[in-house]
Amino acid sequence: MTVEPDTAAFRVELESLAAANTAYAESFDGQLRPVRPRRELVIVACMDSRMDIFSMLGLEVGDAHVIRNAGGIVTDDVIRSLCLSQRLLGTREIVLIHHTNCGLEGVSDAHFAAELQAETGRVPSWLVGGFVDPAEDVRRSMQAIRDSPFLPHRDLVAGFVFHVDTGRLESVT
Amino acid sequence: MTVEPDTAAFRVELESLAAANTAYAESFDGQLRPVRPRRELVIVACMDSRMDIFSMLGLEVGDAHVIRNAGGIVTDDVIRSLCLSQRLLGTREIVLIHHTNCGLEGVSDAHFAAELQAETGRVPSWLVGGFVDPAEDVRRSMQAIRDSPFLPHRDLVAGFVFHVDTGRLESVT
Repeated sequence: MTVEPDTAAFRVELESLAAANTAYAESFDGQLRPVRPRRELVIVACMDSRMDIFSMLGLEVGDAHVIRNAGGIVTDDVIRSLCLSQRLLGTREIVLIHHTNCGLEGVSDAHFAAELQAETGRVPSWLVGGFVDPAEDVRRSMQAIRDSPFLPHRDLVAGFVFHVDTGRLESVT
Repeated sequence: MTVEPDTAAFRVELESLAAANTAYAESFDGQLRPVRPRRELVIVACMDSRMDIFSMLGLEVGDAHVIRNAGGIVTDDVIRSLCLSQRLLGTREIVLIHHTNCGLEGVSDAHFAAELQAETGRVPSWLVGGFVDPAEDVRRSMQAIRDSPFLPHRDLVAGFVFHVDTGRLESVT
């Protein structure tokens, strides 16, 4: 079954984003903030739609880098981004945030890869990154940062699980 | 020169984030929104500290996945995240956002890799992703999405450059 892409709906979506952005820009203070994050901080978090990173952490424009992917796991691409952030843009602190009710919870890497291969005839170079327990996954990600030879700053790392039903962060130790 | 990590400053940072989160959670409506993004939309953007994605696009909690890395470039890890987003969580639309005054503008991939190797004795498996023109880089990223065999939905893709001094999005065609 092929479903045609709904280009009319996408046009409405883009108009809605543009209208919201126009309103945002009208109340924007027009100040050019430095490219180096003011708080020397990086947030590494899952892409989940229920995490509004700035609001849930009280961040202001210019405060912190925000890196996000499926699961918030520390892949090579996250190391690339952190490496740039620390070496060229002066950050020193890292805060990792995974969350409850994640789309990757209970997903089988092997099953996902087998389905992809069956449908596309190609084998992806990556595993999707399924996991069982978000706190345990945060600990694994913190360790991956501490183990990377490419990051000059690996001592100031903290981890949290965000509860999507209450909006609360829980510290992971 | 070795600079000791400032653990006291980091503790203050974490207390500040926790306090902001407590305030956020107190005004949170306590509604558990579905794991599938309501607008079937994914934003792929640079990690830059001056882009508050939710505010600048008028997104609400639960609306869209947000993927961010250094440059907002379409790496294998972004394809992994998009693949999961589309195949398991029902998204169909992709909006790419790069921006002016980026830390990667004018960075030489070869120079950055050579410095890393000189300091760590190891060669990274990735290039840092330096570029010259943000609009051209958005076009390259849009093409990388259209070329990926692993994404079922590649027709509804739009690209923008965000101006960090005005808060305005500029459409890239």
